[in-house]
Amino acid sequence: MATVSDITVSAAINSLSALIFLVAFAILRLQPINDRVYFPKWYLKGIRETPSTSGPFVKKFVNLDFRMYLRFLNWVPAALRMPEPELIDHAGLDSAVYIRIYLLGLKIFVPIALLAFAVLLPVNYTGENFKIVSLNMKDITFGEIDKFSISNVPAASKRLIAHIAMAYVFTFWTCYVLYKEYKIVTDMRLHFLASENRRPDQFTVLVRNVPPDPDESVSDHVDHFFRVNHPDQYLSHQVVYNANKLAKMVAQKKHLHNRLIYYTNKHERNPDKRPTTKTGFWGLWGKKIDAIKYYTDEIDKLSTEEVEERERVIGDPKAVVPAAFVSFRSRWGAAVCAQTQQTRNPTRWLTDWAPEPRDVYWDNLAIPFVELNVRRLLMAGALFGLTFCFIVPIALVQTLANIESIEKVVPFLKPLINKRSIKSVIQGFLPGIVLKLFLIILPMILMAMSKIEGFTALSALEARSAGKFHLFLLVNVFFGSIIAGTALEQLKEFLNQSPSEIPKTVGVSIPMKATFFITYIMVDGWAGIAAEILRLVPLVMYHLKNIFLVKTEKDREEAMDPGSLLWPVTEPRMQLYFLLGLVYSTVTPILLPFIIVFFAFSYLVFRHQIINVYHQKYESAASFWPDVNRRILIGLTISQFTLLGLLSTKNATNSTPFLLVLPVLTFWFHRFCKNRFESAFRKFPLQDAMIKDTLERATEPHLDLKSYLQDAYIHPVFKDGEIDTSMDVYDDDDYPVVATRRSSRKGSQVGTREGSPDERSGILAV
Amino acid sequence: MATVSDITVSAAINSLSALIFLVAFAILRLQPINDRVYFPKWYLKGIRETPSTSGPFVKKFVNLDFRMYLRFLNWVPAALRMPEPELIDHAGLDSAVYIRIYLLGLKIFVPIALLAFAVLLPVNYTGENFKIVSLNMKDITFGEIDKFSISNVPAASKRLIAHIAMAYVFTFWTCYVLYKEYKIVTDMRLHFLASENRRPDQFTVLVRNVPPDPDESVSDHVDHFFRVNHPDQYLSHQVVYNANKLAKMVAQKKHLHNRLIYYTNKHERNPDKRPTTKTGFWGLWGKKIDAIKYYTDEIDKLSTEEVEERERVIGDPKAVVPAAFVSFRSRWGAAVCAQTQQTRNPTRWLTDWAPEPRDVYWDNLAIPFVELNVRRLLMAGALFGLTFCFIVPIALVQTLANIESIEKVVPFLKPLINKRSIKSVIQGFLPGIVLKLFLIILPMILMAMSKIEGFTALSALEARSAGKFHLFLLVNVFFGSIIAGTALEQLKEFLNQSPSEIPKTVGVSIPMKATFFITYIMVDGWAGIAAEILRLVPLVMYHLKNIFLVKTEKDREEAMDPGSLLWPVTEPRMQLYFLLGLVYSTVTPILLPFIIVFFAFSYLVFRHQIINVYHQKYESAASFWPDVNRRILIGLTISQFTLLGLLSTKNATNSTPFLLVLPVLTFWFHRFCKNRFESAFRKFPLQDAMIKDTLERATEPHLDLKSYLQDAYIHPVFKDGEIDTSMDVYDDDDYPVVATRRSSRKGSQVGTREGSPDERSGILAV
Repeated sequence: MATVSDITVSAAINSLSALIFLVAFAILRLQPINDRVYFPKWYLKGIRETPSTSGPFVKKFVNLDFRMYLRFLNWVPAALRMPEPELIDHAGLDSAVYIRIYLLGLKIFVPIALLAFAVLLPVNYTGENFKIVSLNMKDITFGEIDKFSISNVPAASKRLIAHIAMAYVFTFWTCYVLYKEYKIVTDMRLHFLASENRRPDQFTVLVRNVPPDPDESVSDHVDHFFRVNHPDQYLSHQVVYNANKLAKMVAQKKHLHNRLIYYTNKHERNPDKRPTTKTGFWGLWGKKIDAIKYYTDEIDKLSTEEVEERERVIGDPKAVVPAAFVSFRSRWGAAVCAQTQQTRNPTRWLTDWAPEPRDVYWDNLAIPFVELNVRRLLMAGALFGLTFCFIVPIALVQTLANIESIEKVVPFLKPLINKRSIKSVIQGFLPGIVLKLFLIILPMILMAMSKIEGFTALSALEARSAGKFHLFLLVNVFFGSIIAGTALEQLKEFLNQSPSEIPKTVGVSIPMKATFFITYIMVDGWAGIAAEILRLVPLVMYHLKNIFLVKTEKDREEAMDPGSLLWPVTEPRMQLYFLLGLVYSTVTPILLPFIIVFFAFSYLVFRHQIINVYHQKYESAASFWPDVNRRILIGLTISQFTLLGLLSTKNATNSTPFLLVLPVLTFWFHRFCKNRFESAFRKFPLQDAMIKDTLERATEPHLDLKSYLQDAYIHPVFKDGEIDTSMDVYDDDDYPVVATRRSSRKGSQVGTREGSPDERSGILAV
Repeated sequence: MATVSDITVSAAINSLSALIFLVAFAILRLQPINDRVYFPKWYLKGIRETPSTSGPFVKKFVNLDFRMYLRFLNWVPAALRMPEPELIDHAGLDSAVYIRIYLLGLKIFVPIALLAFAVLLPVNYTGENFKIVSLNMKDITFGEIDKFSISNVPAASKRLIAHIAMAYVFTFWTCYVLYKEYKIVTDMRLHFLASENRRPDQFTVLVRNVPPDPDESVSDHVDHFFRVNHPDQYLSHQVVYNANKLAKMVAQKKHLHNRLIYYTNKHERNPDKRPTTKTGFWGLWGKKIDAIKYYTDEIDKLSTEEVEERERVIGDPKAVVPAAFVSFRSRWGAAVCAQTQQTRNPTRWLTDWAPEPRDVYWDNLAIPFVELNVRRLLMAGALFGLTFCFIVPIALVQTLANIESIEKVVPFLKPLINKRSIKSVIQGFLPGIVLKLFLIILPMILMAMSKIEGFTALSALEARSAGKFHLFLLVNVFFGSIIAGTALEQLKEFLNQSPSEIPKTVGVSIPMKATFFITYIMVDGWAGIAAEILRLVPLVMYHLKNIFLVKTEKDREEAMDPGSLLWPVTEPRMQLYFLLGLVYSTVTPILLPFIIVFFAFSYLVFRHQIINVYHQKYESAASFWPDVNRRILIGLTISQFTLLGLLSTKNATNSTPFLLVLPVLTFWFHRFCKNRFESAFRKFPLQDAMIKDTLERATEPHLDLKSYLQDAYIHPVFKDGEIDTSMDVYDDDDYPVVATRRSSRKGSQVGTREGSPDERSGILAV
């Protein structure tokens, strides 16, 4: 067990590393050369220009104004200064609500911490189980931290009543804050939707599983069906082409184009020598050839192929998938169609709101009903395997960190391991690297799984990936650390245990793991967040691109990588802190300040990033909030069960009925919230649609809606303009980096200039 | 353990009692005097008249045609003769689909039984564990039945592979049959709905939680809201009055009227003596007074009060509840409104399909949202208590049957118990009577609980009650018999067990309980169903009423009690047989023929009853099928888990992963069915609505829909006509007997004579 001084040392180290990151950030951000790395959002909005200060040449790259270095922390008040309505206008509702989650963490945990420190710390500290135990048993080591935890309360003590009472108070407080927040977010969302400008998705419904008709084309079939069944409201429709192959060609061409630019630049800098490349993979092996000629030829070849494919897709009726975007004369008509069932067979003519055009995931529009069900079954199995079998490597890695246990497991390796160099490699790097590598590719695996499940919008894909990652973290980081952390042997024992024993096993381990989680919070939470603000990878990437690829100002703009919130990764990680805070609030309240620091610091950092850096790929108007609410309640329920298990091992089994009431109430609260609020996040009420329609009819009586909607839902490869240089690429394996949509951005800059949500939530330039 | 001969004796006794019931039925049904008891449905349809054969007076009461007695079983082919389309026309879709459930039982279990007898019986019989066990252990008694069960297979035997393989085959077969049946029922429902005549509920939506408006009445508010938000489709609306008090008065008046008729009849028969009654409860005590005068006065008093109340309700704006029935110009408009969300706040302006007028449960139309949530939470708690604490009385009663265990539990009662008379009373009657009484009132308790939960349609109330009763039977009859049956001591042990141990405990007991359940099937299934056809209680009640109350032919019609299917009781009971069949299919296949006989016999009996007797209160167009399907799948899952538990105690734990696949697949199949079919039972597709609208517009271009709908949803106490003699009474405590609606029936007989569903599903005359 760690002592208080151990924790202090760890806190000092992590605070220091966080501080170093912050100082580095403060210095780097002041250099004009890094301006596009730390303020890309302002460039994308067209407000900031590349600094072109007159004066010494060096000033273009290095900031020589030393007074600015003295105020190196002035980004903090700047980040806090922007009021929320302006923030929503600037970064979109998704981002504004996202940072509210950190604020929610503060709202929940600051009062809980105050109360826990006032009530539970004295109760625990004067419990003096410590003395009793240390007299009786030798094998249980008691850390100083434990004096402040429930471990210091003797079994069957009357003091445990305080913990039960506090569990009630914390549950009610958490639910109260969640209820208030859900209400606020719902209002924000509805207000945001109501004040939105006209957007194509307000009038459009995505129809899937159009049944085949022997006599008609898909397009005619859709047209006739809606003309008959929505006679007053149907306006037009847009069929969907299966242009996946074409999109791949376009992506390939863009890649070749980049290589060509690289070699052209090289040649310009050094005109004497023609640059060469090799024909093999990534130019690493094979025959040596002239690079510029090779890539020019390749691009020409691909261009002709692309033209052919483009003609084939448009001409071939088989390239039309049985799905369509159907547009209506009014928002009311679209709302009606999206919320109703069209035919007897609920697997055909499925209608749902169309995602906004940027949000459509084109590859998945044509999956038939039964296949979709089978895919989800398979992916559920795969997720189960991934989540529960990964627990073995984690435990293995944690055992590997211990040389003695390796020797025990594989005794024949003993002579090899005892060599000093190998020993240090094994102990120091290998386990960490393996684990880290897996964790880096994990979100991509989960995203690929979500794609196989067949969701049709990027926002839905991200939401599903977040759900999967949340499960993974819960099982492997939280339960994995608690159970397997103590010993690998316990794992097998645990698997053979009955489910009702789990709360007990977990409950017993919880207080012992407090110091581990405190360290975890400091490493992953404090230092990790500080690293986030430094943006080391984009910084390096930007400068590399700048050197090798950038020729024009436009290229420089493309070299910027503003990144985005990475919802599927950050939200589940944040949920882990909610879980830890709730679990330890009654057990080891001394952990709470670390959680609070995490939330406060993250709030600051992400507010800065959202204002200055991130550019969201789409705007879902905070449609993720029901997930956030549900997951916090899952954390709350886990905390209640662990306390129940812990107390039942403390000979306080008669407390079980009292504590069993809490999960029941929490579940009921979840149902209540779902009934009360969730439909605001899933449906679009007719009244609101009608109000917007009426308003629009009054202000713009001569609006030509049909031409407005005409090209909204055309597959991006068919959009006119700079197809050959920038294009939507939706690649299965290419997880976080998704789209370059210059053409549509240009469009939005021209068409809906005055801060429309289209523009606000912006486009990610690669 | 029972031997084969024990079972044979029990089978003989039960078959004999079933036969006696059948013979009694065959004789009684031929007597003209009982004609209205055994053929009420034909009277209600107006096809059959009171027999008025000329000839000897006695022929009016007793059938003297002895040739008819020889063919006393001729009701069987008669019951089978009516083809299904005619049956639907005659008795409604609900009834026709209901008896299909019995047919479904045959479809599932006949092939399973054949396969099990061909494969598992030989495998079990040659297992010879019997010999091994009887050599080694003394305390386990082995019945002859067990030689045919899995108990006869030694632990860790390779023979168990056969049982696992059969579990797979049975699961797939059951799912296959369920899928086919779901498809058929869905088609039947859609066809039925499509061919239905015009009904008010096709055009009407029930709106609840109308928000209060300070400036407008509820009626104006509803009118304005729908005029704005459904401008092209809104037609009219009907507010709902809180007429519960008035309805009670009407019911009270009807009761007094009955008493008056009784005493008038008495006086007529014996004109010398004025009948007297007492003022106290039910005329049992208090001052002696002249009965006719007393009741005439009371009725007069109540009549004036009723008139006042009627005026108050109609005049007072506070008597209008915040709910309304809103009608639309077309089915399309109603379908749109029912399926969409109206406003931002999902707890206001809640819209859903209006139940058909007979189906409305008026008392529950005005419950606000939060109260509804709290009510459901409370009732969930109450249901939990009722279900899980009732297990104690069952176990207690089963222990009471055994005098020795009473003496052990309460030794001070020993001298008293040993008296012979007391002993026989205790052993013979008391436990049975207590249990039986509770089981009789249980459906009423469950119905009252469903009413508190706030459902607005009788069909929904019945569906919820059925769900509760199913849970109750599952926990108390199935699990209760298996676990507590062996010994009361096991119960406590079991409660302290961990959840993962439950499959094992249950699995081990399953084979031992086979003989018990065989007896149960014969008593409850065979003899119980035979008693159903005899209709002893309605027979006696009819003749009593005939003697004391009936004056005119109309009174006689009211004295008929055709009864109805009692869905909330019969369906869960039937599910118990599905469960038993599935559980024992792999364990003790010898039980299957008993199940098959039950299903075949029930099919016969209920087909007869539906054709000749029952009159459904409402027509839900088989909307209960998703529940049936789900519950059979629950039974299937339980059977899989018990087999898993059983095998894991047979040292075949490596079979667990193979068997765990089955519940996962079953759950997936459930989800699949839900996605594929359920919406056909919950929503009304726009295409179908449009087809019906278009057809109607073509055939009846001048239909005055507004006047057609005008009075459809008026509270029955406000309907004109014979209010004082017959009236809808929805009384909380009066569970199965619900409504007399002469006025509406008269209406349907005049208006929609030619076999409309209104008439088809008929009205229950008390």
